[in-house]
Amino acid sequence: MRTNHRFSWEISYFTPPEHPKAWYPATVPGAAQLDVGKALGLPDPYFADQAKEWAWLEDVTFVYRTGFRRDDLLAGQPEGTQVWWRCGGIDYRWSVALNGQVLEQGEGMFRPLSLRLEHLQDDNVLEVTVFPVPKVAGRPNDRSQASASTKPAVSYGWDWHPRLIPSGLWDDAWFEVRPQPVLELVNFEPGLSADLSVARFTVDVVWDRPLPGGIHQEGRVRARLREAKGEAIWDASQAAASDAGFGSGAGKGTNARFAGTLHNPQLWWPHDQGTPYLYQLELTLEVAGREVDRLVRTVGFRRIRLVTNEGAWNEPAIFPKTRSVTGVQFEVNGRGVFAKGTNWVNPEVFPGTLTAGRYEELLDLAVGANFNIVRVWGGGIVNKEAFHDLCDQKGLLVWQEFPLACNNYPDEPAYLATLAREADAIVRRLRLHPSTALWCGGNELFNSWSGMDDQSLALRQLGAICLALDPGTPFLPTSPVMGMGHGPYVFRDDAGQDVFEVMNKARCTAYTEFGVPSPSSVAVLQGIIPADELWPPLPTTAWTAHHGFDSWQPTTWLMPEVIADYFGPADNLALLIDAGQTLQAEGYRYVYEEARRQKPYCSMALNWCFNEPWPCAANNSLVMYPAQPKPALAAVRQACRPVLASARYAKFRWTEGELWEAELWLLNDSPFDIPAVTVSAWLDDGERTLLATWPCPALAPGVNAAGPTVRWPVRSGGPVFRLMLEVDGAADWGSEYQFRRRNLVKVQEGTARMNQTETREAL
Amino acid sequence: MRTNHRFSWEISYFTPPEHPKAWYPATVPGAAQLDVGKALGLPDPYFADQAKEWAWLEDVTFVYRTGFRRDDLLAGQPEGTQVWWRCGGIDYRWSVALNGQVLEQGEGMFRPLSLRLEHLQDDNVLEVTVFPVPKVAGRPNDRSQASASTKPAVSYGWDWHPRLIPSGLWDDAWFEVRPQPVLELVNFEPGLSADLSVARFTVDVVWDRPLPGGIHQEGRVRARLREAKGEAIWDASQAAASDAGFGSGAGKGTNARFAGTLHNPQLWWPHDQGTPYLYQLELTLEVAGREVDRLVRTVGFRRIRLVTNEGAWNEPAIFPKTRSVTGVQFEVNGRGVFAKGTNWVNPEVFPGTLTAGRYEELLDLAVGANFNIVRVWGGGIVNKEAFHDLCDQKGLLVWQEFPLACNNYPDEPAYLATLAREADAIVRRLRLHPSTALWCGGNELFNSWSGMDDQSLALRQLGAICLALDPGTPFLPTSPVMGMGHGPYVFRDDAGQDVFEVMNKARCTAYTEFGVPSPSSVAVLQGIIPADELWPPLPTTAWTAHHGFDSWQPTTWLMPEVIADYFGPADNLALLIDAGQTLQAEGYRYVYEEARRQKPYCSMALNWCFNEPWPCAANNSLVMYPAQPKPALAAVRQACRPVLASARYAKFRWTEGELWEAELWLLNDSPFDIPAVTVSAWLDDGERTLLATWPCPALAPGVNAAGPTVRWPVRSGGPVFRLMLEVDGAADWGSEYQFRRRNLVKVQEGTARMNQTETREAL
Repeated sequence: MRTNHRFSWEISYFTPPEHPKAWYPATVPGAAQLDVGKALGLPDPYFADQAKEWAWLEDVTFVYRTGFRRDDLLAGQPEGTQVWWRCGGIDYRWSVALNGQVLEQGEGMFRPLSLRLEHLQDDNVLEVTVFPVPKVAGRPNDRSQASASTKPAVSYGWDWHPRLIPSGLWDDAWFEVRPQPVLELVNFEPGLSADLSVARFTVDVVWDRPLPGGIHQEGRVRARLREAKGEAIWDASQAAASDAGFGSGAGKGTNARFAGTLHNPQLWWPHDQGTPYLYQLELTLEVAGREVDRLVRTVGFRRIRLVTNEGAWNEPAIFPKTRSVTGVQFEVNGRGVFAKGTNWVNPEVFPGTLTAGRYEELLDLAVGANFNIVRVWGGGIVNKEAFHDLCDQKGLLVWQEFPLACNNYPDEPAYLATLAREADAIVRRLRLHPSTALWCGGNELFNSWSGMDDQSLALRQLGAICLALDPGTPFLPTSPVMGMGHGPYVFRDDAGQDVFEVMNKARCTAYTEFGVPSPSSVAVLQGIIPADELWPPLPTTAWTAHHGFDSWQPTTWLMPEVIADYFGPADNLALLIDAGQTLQAEGYRYVYEEARRQKPYCSMALNWCFNEPWPCAANNSLVMYPAQPKPALAAVRQACRPVLASARYAKFRWTEGELWEAELWLLNDSPFDIPAVTVSAWLDDGERTLLATWPCPALAPGVNAAGPTVRWPVRSGGPVFRLMLEVDGAADWGSEYQFRRRNLVKVQEGTARMNQTETREAL
Repeated sequence: MRTNHRFSWEISYFTPPEHPKAWYPATVPGAAQLDVGKALGLPDPYFADQAKEWAWLEDVTFVYRTGFRRDDLLAGQPEGTQVWWRCGGIDYRWSVALNGQVLEQGEGMFRPLSLRLEHLQDDNVLEVTVFPVPKVAGRPNDRSQASASTKPAVSYGWDWHPRLIPSGLWDDAWFEVRPQPVLELVNFEPGLSADLSVARFTVDVVWDRPLPGGIHQEGRVRARLREAKGEAIWDASQAAASDAGFGSGAGKGTNARFAGTLHNPQLWWPHDQGTPYLYQLELTLEVAGREVDRLVRTVGFRRIRLVTNEGAWNEPAIFPKTRSVTGVQFEVNGRGVFAKGTNWVNPEVFPGTLTAGRYEELLDLAVGANFNIVRVWGGGIVNKEAFHDLCDQKGLLVWQEFPLACNNYPDEPAYLATLAREADAIVRRLRLHPSTALWCGGNELFNSWSGMDDQSLALRQLGAICLALDPGTPFLPTSPVMGMGHGPYVFRDDAGQDVFEVMNKARCTAYTEFGVPSPSSVAVLQGIIPADELWPPLPTTAWTAHHGFDSWQPTTWLMPEVIADYFGPADNLALLIDAGQTLQAEGYRYVYEEARRQKPYCSMALNWCFNEPWPCAANNSLVMYPAQPKPALAAVRQACRPVLASARYAKFRWTEGELWEAELWLLNDSPFDIPAVTVSAWLDDGERTLLATWPCPALAPGVNAAGPTVRWPVRSGGPVFRLMLEVDGAADWGSEYQFRRRNLVKVQEGTARMNQTETREAL
């Protein structure tokens, strides 16, 4: 059996032709910058604008080293025992050397390394050199510097991410002692019959060297599938003496393929559609009847398709006709599923510090918000294994992008070769996860600010790699594709339309990014902005470094002028935050519900964005760094309930004398039959008025119902009025909406317009 | 040196469990149906509706056989001489046997066969069995029967193609005697530098067996590039004794790769942009200093890209934003080229009868019409080599589709494997032609009547194959893609809009199908319709079998009611034809010119369709079967001149009292600077009126100019008036447009509306 060993690491940095001088303790996994920053006492990069003091670390070379004695690993081990150094990936350009001899060098953080260490000495040093972060020459200090590499572009600066670029040993690294051959699972393909009643699956396995043996003493490889409760339901083994096919690259070839059949498999479902059932796949390698290696991992049976959205084939209707829109309706195990979710960004500026615990904390918030999908946005990293294990377990679909975003990635051979290596490693790793629901080339690549198009060799290559390695999972070249929409990103746009008006006019197959910003809560702000700059927020202060100002448009995320227009001038920070967070909650709630009303033509709603990599002063996120929900998360949780009473209305603010109206809906994404219910609509502007009761008929699974439009003449009163929808016998399907009211006041004109009385609006 | 031999063929047919009985002479290349039909005296399938008497031939099995004596091939040949049977492809499911032993069997007509014949007897029989045409079970007798095969769907019946399905030995077949090894060219990649000044090309060559030799007697392979006038400008050779890499499949591996550099290569251009320059690539194989094989073929240096159309990045403008449209602007050798051309369909119902002569006759008409591109539509065949050689020579770009059209081709492994084999063969053959400008998955696959979408494994696979084998040529999954338009297909639509109105409102990046129908000329009609059915055309007659009626909509192609509305009731066939052909000419002329006015956002105009596979009674074709131009071809030739004066106007028919108007343009697709000219606009309704003179400024290459709008109050007069545009000093840039006039007449109402005079329209 293999054993794993980890020794402590040190780190140094230098700029050639200099050499490493001082060595500091290093944390692995982690980030070279954090180790050196800590050693040198650099200031907290998350406070005020201190991140800029870390900028010089982009351009130095780091060296990690770890020392070990041969006996630390091999004492007591039999002859022929092998030692390997393994690592989940090195960020970004790297070289690995043992005792001064380079073992391998490369580019790209997503390729796991398995290096056999031969010729060990009594005392050994393994060194990992990490070169300066990649930057395309001649570009400004922005994301375009990442446009010829697979380095996630977000670290080069985004409108909610600081310019702060990590590198180094960002994933686990260990020494593996192998007295005997060891196994690796190459692929598990859960081939389901059309009616899902039979799984004809395959299991592909490799091992790392020819097994000892002969006619009478063969090795055997064995594969077993166990139910969650541990019972083996399938068991197969085959002779493993042959080394035919071996040597086609670590983890690339197939030494043994098992083909199994399972009747009535329990299926993996997104959590809101069923149980995300996982089986245990157990692989063992036996030599002369003795088990020498064992691997266990979870696998699932599911079929995920993207199909054409209902109604989309009816378009276009007139000549000349272009094509119909790209189908983006998820169908999971034969059932159309409305995808409710969010855009997942790096939860840390330094992703090397990410732990399973942090992943779980965030993913639990996502599941708690009734999300069934996360889009892992192409500007960020491909996550560590723990993320995908958790999504498997929690029944969250994963839309996985490759690391391309908002750049024009070139048709150059060197870049294409790096991308191919990285993509190969990414697909081979994530295809084993039943939660992997969609491959996507990257973010907004077919829009002007990226400038790529359908002929991009990078995207064509990604399509070919996904087809070759994971043909059962859909692929899209980018988001948005034809018919899909990104935006809006504000509560009210420059034309004065609020997000309700924009969404009512929109007609997309999927809203895969839409944002409503808000300021962060006081505690977060106090942690990043000097006390004397907290109030009032000004563009000349630390508010700007944390994206309160001058991110995208001057006041996009903090939007003090919008808040003031709706709520009047805020005279303290708490009021500003409360107002901004109210807008965010009402705005997000509406978008999710409106997208659901547009079902089945619309099939997806993913807000921009879920989380954030550092504490932002203001952002579209639902969850503040590191994992603190904003009030909007609760509103979104309400909007994404499987079944709820919902209202469609024109806008957020109404003026006295206007005829307010709202359509009543019952939204149903549930896989169950829904009984007939009665919905009562109450208007509360201090006193409650019953506007209508609606006997909503029973509903088939996944089908919405549209009810009556209710009306109410807006009368003068307080700044807020509310609509309450109560569902008889299903209290938790009820909903509540908030509106702002503008009262009219009589204004007496001055001398120029004597005797003329005008009606003016006032807050 | 190899020698080729052809022996006569016989054919028989049977239905298992029967066996072949009678044998008839067979023509190879040809079609099994034609041989048997001739032998049995079946009636001419092109006359009236007699094609239906050929229908039973779909479901029989054919056997071709050819006999030869070993001495016919091998007498006098040295020991070790090999005999191969080669064939361009067998349509569609087939098996090849020598003396009763099956050598190979397969499916698909586009895969060339090279079969080594071993163990020859004194007397030998080679048999080719051709199985019944593929039909998906349970489908009606229409194109959907072809939806799980690579059989071109058009033969199953289309609205301009009879149901008449060919099969058999449709391309050349011969015996090849090889006393020595023979060569094959695998690939020639013309890698051009960014500025096109340097070609770094590669030449990949295989030979069919290890060469004899040793240290002192090696084989050599030699490659030479010659200019058109014969001078060698590059010459390289290398040892060829090694058989490393051999055996990776006939024509698939690479035994030798040459890398060459050529400075200032002469480029291959579409004929309207420059010279379609071709070099001779000469390959020889030498053993012990003696040449044993030689291959010569033409190659060209060009770079073809599809880039985003000018203006397309400005869209979409509002949130939510979807992607920008698919870029479809051809850029040839760095220059944006407006693609003017046509949809090429099978020129024969039985493509096996196609000759280089027929191809040339038709392609000369295309070049003569000022077309620079042909779209080889996916409903039909991939053409024989002669077609592509001619396109290379004549400077015609080829948009090449795979054989998928208007069906939902499945994600099934058997179909995908057949498609992959066929596509591999197609791409390997056509990538050697510089005229191959675009790969396309097939016709209208992303529209409702096909029902495929971006996740189709067939289309993803085609993209991957094209990327792997021919990455330098663009790929589109289908036509239309986003932003591209198909249609309209009539002069006047059901809403009463004529094609001028439709096109003026359209805004596409490319019009890749648009049709205006007309009846065929009298001589054609007399050849296909019984004399007593010629007049009047009725749906109950042979007019219908030849698509005059009930193709698509009841009267779509013949449109007698539209003709009658514009021209009055026709009282004889000649008048009907003349009127219909006038509408076609005026309609097509306008679409090409309007598409050119929409440049640069629009980059392409391809009418539906160029030719036809049999004599149609009425069709959108510009050329009647077999190669007779309709009058519209001359009008299109005028519309596609590199430079012309052009007019934009609202509609074809004007009523007395209306204010007629037209915008004046100078359209310029030429690669040259255009001098300033003066354009005079004359209105001729019996007398000539000068409406305006426009001093058009000098124009840069490829740039249009928009001039003044001229106006004229329509007065009563004859049924026709014309606009003449004359260009001072460039008479051949002048244009003339025809309009129909409706006069108003006073109608006295009857008793019910006494004393009331109404104005009515009359023809």
